[in-house]
Amino acid sequence: MPVLVMKFGGTSVADLARIKNAAQKVKREVERGYDVIVIVSAMSGKTNELVGWVEGTSPLYDAREYDAVVSSGENVTAGLMALTLQEMDIPARSWQGWQVPINTTSAHASARFVSIPRENIDAKFAEGFKVAVVAGFQGVSAEGRITTLGRGGSDTTAVAFAAAFGAERCDIYTDVDGVYTTDPRITNKARKLDKIAFEEMLELASLGAKVLQTRSVELAMRYKVRLRVLSSFEDTDENSGTLVCDEDEIMESKVVSGVAYSRDEAKLTLLRVADRPGIAAAIFGPLAEAGVNVDMIVQNISEGGEGGAFTDMTFSCPTNQVIRAKAAMDEAKAAGSITFDDMVVDSDVAKISVVGIGMRSHAGVAATMFKALASENVNIKVIATSEIKISVLIDRKYMELAVQALHDAFGLEKA
Amino acid sequence: MPVLVMKFGGTSVADLARIKNAAQKVKREVERGYDVIVIVSAMSGKTNELVGWVEGTSPLYDAREYDAVVSSGENVTAGLMALTLQEMDIPARSWQGWQVPINTTSAHASARFVSIPRENIDAKFAEGFKVAVVAGFQGVSAEGRITTLGRGGSDTTAVAFAAAFGAERCDIYTDVDGVYTTDPRITNKARKLDKIAFEEMLELASLGAKVLQTRSVELAMRYKVRLRVLSSFEDTDENSGTLVCDEDEIMESKVVSGVAYSRDEAKLTLLRVADRPGIAAAIFGPLAEAGVNVDMIVQNISEGGEGGAFTDMTFSCPTNQVIRAKAAMDEAKAAGSITFDDMVVDSDVAKISVVGIGMRSHAGVAATMFKALASENVNIKVIATSEIKISVLIDRKYMELAVQALHDAFGLEKA
Repeated sequence: MPVLVMKFGGTSVADLARIKNAAQKVKREVERGYDVIVIVSAMSGKTNELVGWVEGTSPLYDAREYDAVVSSGENVTAGLMALTLQEMDIPARSWQGWQVPINTTSAHASARFVSIPRENIDAKFAEGFKVAVVAGFQGVSAEGRITTLGRGGSDTTAVAFAAAFGAERCDIYTDVDGVYTTDPRITNKARKLDKIAFEEMLELASLGAKVLQTRSVELAMRYKVRLRVLSSFEDTDENSGTLVCDEDEIMESKVVSGVAYSRDEAKLTLLRVADRPGIAAAIFGPLAEAGVNVDMIVQNISEGGEGGAFTDMTFSCPTNQVIRAKAAMDEAKAAGSITFDDMVVDSDVAKISVVGIGMRSHAGVAATMFKALASENVNIKVIATSEIKISVLIDRKYMELAVQALHDAFGLEKA
Repeated sequence: MPVLVMKFGGTSVADLARIKNAAQKVKREVERGYDVIVIVSAMSGKTNELVGWVEGTSPLYDAREYDAVVSSGENVTAGLMALTLQEMDIPARSWQGWQVPINTTSAHASARFVSIPRENIDAKFAEGFKVAVVAGFQGVSAEGRITTLGRGGSDTTAVAFAAAFGAERCDIYTDVDGVYTTDPRITNKARKLDKIAFEEMLELASLGAKVLQTRSVELAMRYKVRLRVLSSFEDTDENSGTLVCDEDEIMESKVVSGVAYSRDEAKLTLLRVADRPGIAAAIFGPLAEAGVNVDMIVQNISEGGEGGAFTDMTFSCPTNQVIRAKAAMDEAKAAGSITFDDMVVDSDVAKISVVGIGMRSHAGVAATMFKALASENVNIKVIATSEIKISVLIDRKYMELAVQALHDAFGLEKA
């Protein structure tokens, strides 16, 4: 039998009625002839409750106990989903991570997959079971302790099972009906994409289009798992949602597929940094140690002069990490490992990115982007580019305007 | 190191503050030099919530999935307790049933222990861990599925660990401060017992003094585990609570140790049953099949006469099983396996029992009991006796009066 993986997130299994609704979707796929592996999250809110208890008990918690506690939400949903399917006369059973077993590293709270042996679940399929309901987000270490994969890990579990079982597709059911050219709340011209390439989805996921966890897309790309994002709350068929797939599957590729944004960005500039070999490491090492997620980095041309060469170094990070970043830089300055005249912080910026695999072969994307922003009088503060992405930092107050202008400029409302 | 088992019930771990309070008690025992095995229940209310979800999903649920779901509450508490102990600088870790492993039968939702190998936990004690926090109520079957022991099973888990590890004592922390001569809500003369024999506790437990699960007392008696019942919510020391122990440990044994009652009893009488060999089996077989818990049984002297011998058969059962019991009897009559003239149901009765190992060697207990009830004009409807217990059914409205009269008659307020 061909295997299909179906993953249901927290809002899709938030109560018994929604679990039943999700089970109806599973039933339809069983009737189409699939052996189905269902990956479930905890009921929405449950994981936060459990995390709250752990943090309330022990701020610097033992991650092994954290994992033992927070993994319990998925176990509940898995059992309830199996029971719901049984009520529909579909032979199903639940699987906790250690029962499969889902072997992971011992990096508790952020474990990575080591192996997912098929034997136990395949044996049940051979016995006539049609559905294996697997608790997402969890696994078991070589030491026999429960592990978790980090928040949002159930998407990654789904992709890993699809890879291990050679599934025809991995369907991620969520509370949106697909991936859009941009956020529909910002412009009603936003259009649902039928297909998007892995690389594009990766850029969009890491840019704040929170439909899929980044790791799950990376894993899907590596193992060529066809991923589909679709809605739990609508009638869906084989053409619903957005397929995330290899770019070879995408016939008509636009130059730009989408416009992403990230609202809570901050820009920090170190003025007149004494330039020398190794200065970048001296700056970004302490930032990494302080847990600051540095995103864009721009270094101005050095100016030679009295006392040696100097440079201005600009980087961006999430707004809520600014205090930590400033402290790390002040400390490094006090320790004498770097020198700079001043530190300028701008906490009111947003990042706008245009993404598209077509950029690889098309010139002029940057020019079109900058022209569109200029015509709306939006000043660009920082620019960074990758092979399939151009990102800019702008004043946050222009964010919506900029997204709309770029969506228009690249004609994204047209299929 | 000597081993101590400490069990905390649902109200004792109902929130983070109470878990911390319980952990303080564990800490004290660690400081006294014990290796401690802590058995925890789910936070109060959690198991009911989980059972509600299972029953809401599937009224005739697959017990394997029921077990997978309802066992999750204990896993949460075990992790939180381990974290709380770690915060107090006590080396501790949590253990789920499959990690120990707690091997049980495959009788899901009412599994029984097969074995509790010591190796894994002993190895951790040898490494310097001082506390093993074990999720109560659960185990793992030979098939690798999660099992549960039935409601209240955490008491039984605690006793089983005490037996397996040769623990010096098994302390059951709960929301009462010990076992009383009778329910203090009925008479303020009720007195806390310092010690009570296993056999007495068994009779009291099954008679509705809901301090300890019956199975846990049976197991403690078989393996000579010294059980102590004491309060989570008071300062306790080595003399607190009530010790349930072998009768050899009890120096001064009163004839009667306690007066128990059970409020919701019903009495059913089949009139003029055609008496013949096998008639009892023909009556109580169908009742057992219908899930009726028959308690007391009284058969009147047969009256010979026209058409053969006849007898009146009386039995008692919980009030909420009367409908099932009547249906089973009517069915058996319709099927011709039994005959009777009429069935009389009295749903307004209560059971009062006096319990004491001293009865074995002292005569006159029954006479004292009947006299005390007669002097209050309480009519006795049914009498049943065992080696260490005399039970009577009376009108429910006299229940409190009867308990008080018997408590006085046997001088139980005096130590």
